[in-house]
Amino acid sequence: MLTIAVDAMGGDNAPACVVEGTVQALQESSNRFEIVLIGQAEKVEPLLAAQDTASLNLRFMHAPEVVTMDDIPATAVKAKQDSSLVKGLQLCKAKEAHAFVSAGNTGAQMAASLFVLGRLPGVLRPTIYAYFPRIQEGLTNIVDVGANVDCKPENLVQFAEMLTIYQRYAAGIDKPLVGLLNIGEEENKGPEILKQTYRLLQEADRKGKISFIGNIEGHDILKGHATIVVCDGLVGNTVLKFGESIPEFLGMLFKQSLEKLVASGQMDQNSAKITTAMFKGMFEPFDVERFGGVPFLGVDGISIVGHGRSSSRAIKNMIYMAEHMIEKRVNEHIAEVLAED
Amino acid sequence: MLTIAVDAMGGDNAPACVVEGTVQALQESSNRFEIVLIGQAEKVEPLLAAQDTASLNLRFMHAPEVVTMDDIPATAVKAKQDSSLVKGLQLCKAKEAHAFVSAGNTGAQMAASLFVLGRLPGVLRPTIYAYFPRIQEGLTNIVDVGANVDCKPENLVQFAEMLTIYQRYAAGIDKPLVGLLNIGEEENKGPEILKQTYRLLQEADRKGKISFIGNIEGHDILKGHATIVVCDGLVGNTVLKFGESIPEFLGMLFKQSLEKLVASGQMDQNSAKITTAMFKGMFEPFDVERFGGVPFLGVDGISIVGHGRSSSRAIKNMIYMAEHMIEKRVNEHIAEVLAED
Repeated sequence: MLTIAVDAMGGDNAPACVVEGTVQALQESSNRFEIVLIGQAEKVEPLLAAQDTASLNLRFMHAPEVVTMDDIPATAVKAKQDSSLVKGLQLCKAKEAHAFVSAGNTGAQMAASLFVLGRLPGVLRPTIYAYFPRIQEGLTNIVDVGANVDCKPENLVQFAEMLTIYQRYAAGIDKPLVGLLNIGEEENKGPEILKQTYRLLQEADRKGKISFIGNIEGHDILKGHATIVVCDGLVGNTVLKFGESIPEFLGMLFKQSLEKLVASGQMDQNSAKITTAMFKGMFEPFDVERFGGVPFLGVDGISIVGHGRSSSRAIKNMIYMAEHMIEKRVNEHIAEVLAED
Repeated sequence: MLTIAVDAMGGDNAPACVVEGTVQALQESSNRFEIVLIGQAEKVEPLLAAQDTASLNLRFMHAPEVVTMDDIPATAVKAKQDSSLVKGLQLCKAKEAHAFVSAGNTGAQMAASLFVLGRLPGVLRPTIYAYFPRIQEGLTNIVDVGANVDCKPENLVQFAEMLTIYQRYAAGIDKPLVGLLNIGEEENKGPEILKQTYRLLQEADRKGKISFIGNIEGHDILKGHATIVVCDGLVGNTVLKFGESIPEFLGMLFKQSLEKLVASGQMDQNSAKITTAMFKGMFEPFDVERFGGVPFLGVDGISIVGHGRSSSRAIKNMIYMAEHMIEKRVNEHIAEVLAED
């Protein structure tokens, strides 16, 4: 049976939401896997006691320390060896768990994953991606979104290769299309590093490792011409954060416009209510909780990171994601493909 | 009297919209300046003949060649010396015009402006910016948005200095706040180049050339913490094009949601109409035609570029922008401030 370690202390709504999500995952899946929930006993045990956990494949493990959102990623691992973050990853390292799931400090989780689990053979730099909605069915996946800056062409190519494998085996997309995010479509466009990356991506395409469709531009992300968009973490992080800020910005514009219509008598209260519900529903494609989180690609183990705002549903979906990633042997495939270079 | 050269052949709706916008600008301003309209006689003259231009400060100049959207920027200048683009800039160089305005091929205009007009003293690389709507009043201006990639720290600092001067003198913003677009707020975040840029921006702040507020992130753009957002053209171009693609994407989501509501009888046709009009109105802050275009900053002359889709109103506003930039002596101020280094 698979064992998944879950960080009870990670996220803005921890530990309550994490406990709920964990219980839901086990109930809904009929104990398909085992979960080790790690956190501060004084906070987590009362929450567990309030739930009916007797029939669940659930173990609790005490971890006195907590890595917070304010902890500095690079030093948190060493400073807080008794945290749920470090203990969860150590369980994976010791093969006592097959995966680790957390909605805590992303930078600290990345650093700790790298430190405790190490890299898969052949991986230069592990990476993290994010998904965007798109006009076409499916999602656009952007890699890297902030774990790596000053990327070399070889790094960007490995990001494309690793995410291709993830999409192929875990997301079931037979032939994910890779686009290189640039300022123009032509091969000779953009910074020197992207010109070199272009050539290496063509080579990886010839070897059958990826399906490269060439350069794409900012307006292609939501159109969805590419399944995988490759860029340096500076670009990806900026577009991700910019994109995440749009619903709030539009929500404000929408509210102002609607209030004017109601005030002027052009729209009644009931229509305004229906319109507001519709507007909120429009952002369902932006629902990041469907998957819950994303895995770090390239570390020698499975470490899945969720948004700080994760709800119990997000936690539950992250646990399923971990299960799926183990079963589909994503890391084994990454190691195989990268070893071919 | 000021003389403004206008490219009759630039833009998707040229020459018709350009002729209209030119006539409107002269009528509305009561001939406050003189316009030299440059283009192919066989196309422009019939349009002028259809208008009442007798009382206007308007001259027509024939240019047999046209730089199209498909022309390669780097070679267009030399290949099409008799184009309206090159002839208009040559008028500026010869001091027969004080500014040039076009809604044509942006890359070609940038290359031609640099080739014909040259750089202002002290300018390493001319740049181009774009404006974004924001929650706070005013606009967020991003520089560079694609004219320059592989930027060095010195380039980025000059972009900030030049745009600060433009905002101060032409836009009347006393103290535009400069933010450096990065993956985190802390000083030591991000790529090496941005760490160096951070220090140089602090220095420029100490010298009183700019007001530097530190690093900002993607989600700060629409919030408007900074008036001026500095980044490499790769990042700026990507965010700009991504941003421009949002209204279309949301429009599609909106249409689908609304159709469902109408089909299910939850909303009547009339309310749907009002809601649609409201939704379109929401995007007024995104109205790029209010200003019409943006100037290239750092060239030794005034060259204003508009969107290919420019309407007659956009052309008219670009002409006013040119007038304003001449009167506020923006280029003289840029040369002064950069000479201080």
